[in-house]
Amino acid sequence: MPISETWLLPDGVADVLPEQAQVIESLRRDALDFLASRGYQLVYTPFIEYIESLSSLSESNQDLDLVTFKVIDQLSGRLLGVRADMTPQVARIDAHVRSVEGIARYCYAGTVLHTKPQGFSASRTPLQLGAELFGHDSIDADVEMVDVMLGLIEQAGLLDGVHLDLGHVGLFRSLVKYAGLSKSDERQLSDLYQRKALPELKDFTENLKAGSDFYALGRYSSDLEALQANLSQAILDDTDFRDALDELITTRSEIQARWSDLHIGIDVVELRSYHYHTGLLYAVYSPNRAAPLAQGGRYDGIGEHFGRARPATGFSCDLYALTAGQFKQIETIVAPKGTDAGLLQAIRDARQNGARVTQLLGNDDLSSVPYATHTLVNVAGKWQIEKI
Amino acid sequence: MPISETWLLPDGVADVLPEQAQVIESLRRDALDFLASRGYQLVYTPFIEYIESLSSLSESNQDLDLVTFKVIDQLSGRLLGVRADMTPQVARIDAHVRSVEGIARYCYAGTVLHTKPQGFSASRTPLQLGAELFGHDSIDADVEMVDVMLGLIEQAGLLDGVHLDLGHVGLFRSLVKYAGLSKSDERQLSDLYQRKALPELKDFTENLKAGSDFYALGRYSSDLEALQANLSQAILDDTDFRDALDELITTRSEIQARWSDLHIGIDVVELRSYHYHTGLLYAVYSPNRAAPLAQGGRYDGIGEHFGRARPATGFSCDLYALTAGQFKQIETIVAPKGTDAGLLQAIRDARQNGARVTQLLGNDDLSSVPYATHTLVNVAGKWQIEKI
Repeated sequence: MPISETWLLPDGVADVLPEQAQVIESLRRDALDFLASRGYQLVYTPFIEYIESLSSLSESNQDLDLVTFKVIDQLSGRLLGVRADMTPQVARIDAHVRSVEGIARYCYAGTVLHTKPQGFSASRTPLQLGAELFGHDSIDADVEMVDVMLGLIEQAGLLDGVHLDLGHVGLFRSLVKYAGLSKSDERQLSDLYQRKALPELKDFTENLKAGSDFYALGRYSSDLEALQANLSQAILDDTDFRDALDELITTRSEIQARWSDLHIGIDVVELRSYHYHTGLLYAVYSPNRAAPLAQGGRYDGIGEHFGRARPATGFSCDLYALTAGQFKQIETIVAPKGTDAGLLQAIRDARQNGARVTQLLGNDDLSSVPYATHTLVNVAGKWQIEKI
Repeated sequence: MPISETWLLPDGVADVLPEQAQVIESLRRDALDFLASRGYQLVYTPFIEYIESLSSLSESNQDLDLVTFKVIDQLSGRLLGVRADMTPQVARIDAHVRSVEGIARYCYAGTVLHTKPQGFSASRTPLQLGAELFGHDSIDADVEMVDVMLGLIEQAGLLDGVHLDLGHVGLFRSLVKYAGLSKSDERQLSDLYQRKALPELKDFTENLKAGSDFYALGRYSSDLEALQANLSQAILDDTDFRDALDELITTRSEIQARWSDLHIGIDVVELRSYHYHTGLLYAVYSPNRAAPLAQGGRYDGIGEHFGRARPATGFSCDLYALTAGQFKQIETIVAPKGTDAGLLQAIRDARQNGARVTQLLGNDDLSSVPYATHTLVNVAGKWQIEKI
């Protein structure tokens, strides 16, 4: 490799330079402090694990397995995976490492690696931050989680103009069960919903059992009132379907009560991670971005893989995406060389006030510090900070 | 893999649970803030890079290459390495991404991965934190770096009883050059020094050119005065040797002037990373631990690999090792369910005071929150925090 290329980075991989790093670092701290104030306890999960441990989600979510880098463990000869998502790791901790009866709340922040970018122009090394609530299967837990997610977005200064999208995989799932749909039909319907292909959906559902209900689900996916008016009484009387619908309605009204100005949208055929999520889905979108700012949902039973099934709901976001395009200039005060007591005290004082101060080295002058923005100068016996 | 083993972690890999995570998180923040106050700018370096980019140190330091996990880039088909050390990455940034004339100071904190544990009972996923100073080749830069390293240890509350070890690869290196030593003799001598094998050293140096000087270097390795008294005048007159010796003496006295109570030891045959370092070496040891708390040294020329050689000096430490055995209990206040204005205000107030507060969910009682340490109770119309 010629020297001229040694500094090139792979696609989807980037350095984060100081002007941006301090913005991310600051949001990382504020977000973790916010989650701590809500009772979410910080865990650091390992970067590498046996691949079997990481695959608790990937059994039902092949995507995760495909984006996981694999390496051989030189100590055991076994296959290791580099974490591509921290949620299964936190679920493992909840299930086994720190297993308690009752509710456990965890939060985390760290880089995950993806073999390929997920979504349009995405990083292969997102800085994932998230929170999970284990041990409670009522909608109260989901409402708390959505509330916390919105609180985080508000704290990041990104609440203006966002809208919350709510979905629930239970509607489609219970309808599938009620209609006794084949796997193949289920997949095809799921695909039609994702593509919002209404004419095709109409054709496809015409000869299906409960076809008009499947069609109504797609046709009135964002309008719960119209949806209920167009569903058959039979499916509205189905307990599972009814419960899912009620959970969606409750969440919407409880969140609207807490966030009165927020635009809340409904999408009952949003089936993102359909095989992995088991209930409510939630995502916050900004008007200017295709990818959600944060998203999550309920995924009961994930701990089963570790021998202990637990109800769970949680969300995550990518700190790089949240802070995209934000930079902050760094101010650096340069002080002269020397160990004069007054000078050292002035440097200490400035540092204690949060300033960044360096001293000149050797016989250098100010030009040796390209990042200098201020200088510490002695004016009539007093040390003062002056702009350069 | 049976379920009962899915939660096992590979050797040298561990979860960090909340009681320990908050200790590490707190030190991480304090350390980065301390480095910022000294003018070191934070960078986030990528987790994966083309292997050629990571190997700027490993050309002369095969160890680093051996501990680097390699994966195939599915986008380019090329070999990627997972970072095993962040120093070469920061050197790449200094050399190319943000190349300035003059001095650049950077700091960083992040997990690195090692294929095998480095040293006794070490983690394979250390949380490396460090600082680097580029663009200044005088001893002033090394003195600043040692001072900063000690400041960090002091801030972490670990200064009591530590000792600073100073070395300088220039002494041995210039003596080797002066004596025109063969590569094989150089390696053998280096090995004898590492093993502190004085009788063998005596035998080996007896028929060597400048043998008595090589022997003196090992015999009086920790005593600069005795060493000078026992070296030949010829080597003391050698410019390179003299410069190295002077740098060591200057550093010792400048650091002792700043840290008057500190025990400073000298080891002129400490040749750790001999092929990678080019000048002063520094390490802080705690009396109770075999591995140093922090260590570093000068490594001029590293940027050459990226087409721009720069003087450089820096140190790093492992935050997991620094905080080993430290835990902090987490206090969690549990408030009743409800949206009563007084209750919500009491919760907000407690959170703003830094407390962690959760509300009960569903029909739960206190037993649903196993981590609860306090509760928010209404006493005669006033909300109060009480210990459980």
